[in-house]
Amino acid sequence: MVKQAILLTSLACGLILAQPADDSSPASSNVMNAQYPRIHSDLRATFRLSAPDAHKVQVSIAHGRYDMSRGADGLWYATTPPLVPGFHYYSFNVDGASVADPSSHSYYGGSRDSSGIEVPEKGVDFYEAKSVPHGEVRIRWYLSKVTGQHRRCFVYTPPGYDTNTRGRYPVLYLQHGSGEDETGWIFQGRANLILDNLISAGKAKPMIVVMENGYASVGGQSKLPAAATDLDKPAPKVGGYPADTSGFNDVMLQDVIPMIDGAYRTLADREHRAMAGLSMGGNQTCQLTFRNLDKFAWIGAFSGTGNGLSTAPIDAKTFIGGVFADGAALNAKLRLLWIGMGTEEPDPFPGAIGSFRKMLDLSGVKYVYFVSPGTAHEWQTWRRDLNDFAPRLFR
Amino acid sequence: MVKQAILLTSLACGLILAQPADDSSPASSNVMNAQYPRIHSDLRATFRLSAPDAHKVQVSIAHGRYDMSRGADGLWYATTPPLVPGFHYYSFNVDGASVADPSSHSYYGGSRDSSGIEVPEKGVDFYEAKSVPHGEVRIRWYLSKVTGQHRRCFVYTPPGYDTNTRGRYPVLYLQHGSGEDETGWIFQGRANLILDNLISAGKAKPMIVVMENGYASVGGQSKLPAAATDLDKPAPKVGGYPADTSGFNDVMLQDVIPMIDGAYRTLADREHRAMAGLSMGGNQTCQLTFRNLDKFAWIGAFSGTGNGLSTAPIDAKTFIGGVFADGAALNAKLRLLWIGMGTEEPDPFPGAIGSFRKMLDLSGVKYVYFVSPGTAHEWQTWRRDLNDFAPRLFR
Repeated sequence: MVKQAILLTSLACGLILAQPADDSSPASSNVMNAQYPRIHSDLRATFRLSAPDAHKVQVSIAHGRYDMSRGADGLWYATTPPLVPGFHYYSFNVDGASVADPSSHSYYGGSRDSSGIEVPEKGVDFYEAKSVPHGEVRIRWYLSKVTGQHRRCFVYTPPGYDTNTRGRYPVLYLQHGSGEDETGWIFQGRANLILDNLISAGKAKPMIVVMENGYASVGGQSKLPAAATDLDKPAPKVGGYPADTSGFNDVMLQDVIPMIDGAYRTLADREHRAMAGLSMGGNQTCQLTFRNLDKFAWIGAFSGTGNGLSTAPIDAKTFIGGVFADGAALNAKLRLLWIGMGTEEPDPFPGAIGSFRKMLDLSGVKYVYFVSPGTAHEWQTWRRDLNDFAPRLFR
Repeated sequence: MVKQAILLTSLACGLILAQPADDSSPASSNVMNAQYPRIHSDLRATFRLSAPDAHKVQVSIAHGRYDMSRGADGLWYATTPPLVPGFHYYSFNVDGASVADPSSHSYYGGSRDSSGIEVPEKGVDFYEAKSVPHGEVRIRWYLSKVTGQHRRCFVYTPPGYDTNTRGRYPVLYLQHGSGEDETGWIFQGRANLILDNLISAGKAKPMIVVMENGYASVGGQSKLPAAATDLDKPAPKVGGYPADTSGFNDVMLQDVIPMIDGAYRTLADREHRAMAGLSMGGNQTCQLTFRNLDKFAWIGAFSGTGNGLSTAPIDAKTFIGGVFADGAALNAKLRLLWIGMGTEEPDPFPGAIGSFRKMLDLSGVKYVYFVSPGTAHEWQTWRRDLNDFAPRLFR
């Protein structure tokens, strides 16, 4: 009786259906053979969970939280409104416990292994695996001189890298956001497939892409992150301890770039070295590259600029060592400054990115500004960013 | 009052403590900065979960299930008895929902992304990252002619592969178990670190290791697995549908081996090609290699042999095309047959592996038999297997 009452209430409010519509199919992000979550033709998603003794179960996705209700089979179901296409983190809440969905693959985001769901975008396949030559993604372990610990980075080598043994390649350093790690641009972002498709179509130059972990503690010591390098959240906390980015610049300059230039056939100069990042990684990119313009000539800031979460006006004379004060001088050094943002990004991103752009405009610094329509602070924005940014590099 | 009663009962039975002992430290398998789970010096593990409105929470690990109780902070805690060293899958049960721990990394096992915990083994570091030259693990995407789908394999290239550009290498094909995939031998098994350490110590020859997904459907059609190729469970099911291994042999012979020999500098003959697998993968290895001895000369069966879960006596005259009937002839072809098992493996593994060995003994087929002391049907067994098996290859 209680179950029926819940179900009727749910149906009445129009958000929840215990049964999927006929036109739904399993999400491509499901674990092998799992039939849920299911995506409907109108991009609603139906989730299912077995929680026989639970009293309240919800699914949280894309800033919405939806009550689930028991179906006739005793399992919990909820159908969301139509979702924005792309990759979304989500979680279940089972009697107060926020947990992942056993039916979906998990991805490191939100400072934990979170469930992800892939919502297809009609007519869009630039990030899908196609019948084109594929590069490889190499997982590379190394001992960091900076942190004293064994670290891991992901390195994309383009199609033909192994056979074109005399060729040398430019390098894009590409960073994840807060609460993510070096795996994000491959498993959530599909950077390798985006590059495979661009390169095979002749739209982007073959390049190496290096994805490092943005968290690093100098000498293994955990420190509070500097305010300016902590973009997404005031202090990303896991287990009550702040994540530490204090060693990131040193890891990049002392460990990663020399290692990459030593281990791969790179073109090891500023004209052939780019860096981009999303959110916290965009902030880290600005903080690192604008202080090291002898090493980088191409810069991408995806939903994150050098002022972090601050929406305050920026004084070009003092910001990042005053590098923006002389716009003409900076323009002469930069081959590309590229800034992107989704139209649906929440505060403080529009304000923070807006302040950075206003500072650039006042100083006369040239940049490309890209807008992702209909997407928020999420991976579909950043996939589109990379798809627009990469073709402009190393021309 | 209820909470107190639960806590006192728990303390009385000696399995659960709401507070960790002072000598505990966070498990190395935790997500960044997570303070739980914690491992004690005697290898007990303390788990913690936030589930404010739950009525019953348990942790399941290594075939034990332990009630959790609320601590003074309102979070749920349980401390297990001392655990066997190595990697263990585990899960929480929250009011009937079996879910992963947000504080640990997840690994594909049990046909879902399951929590894993690393319990250190005193004085043992053969699978740890050390200051030795590291090989790379390459994630390789390809279009399968057999399944018609884009698939992914993991390829370990040994230290020096990129610089020793005229060197050619032998290849070990290495398969996961039921409900796992091509990621298992790296993230759970640490095959790359085991090989790095063996190679740097001069104990194993530099080799390429290829890890493919053991599930494959011919032409994208899902079929029931043949009984003989489905080792761990009668039918590994996810979402009510059986996983399908029917296309695996064809994927290996028609897709993977030709691709690997084309893309990497391999020694492409039987004398330089090995295959091994664990559990279901050991069964797949036997089913594939003994039917293709023109392609493989080195064979490893880790906790799984060609008779699957059957403990029935095996007739060498008919089993796998009668290849075992003439022991002397088979011995002349094989460079190595290696079989391993943990002393604590549950039924039916001792019986099934025992039947296979008895058949070999009756036919006079030579093999190495390795026993992993104190470990069950789990990754610590298979790490030890690889550490013993790999040094014997390609000698």
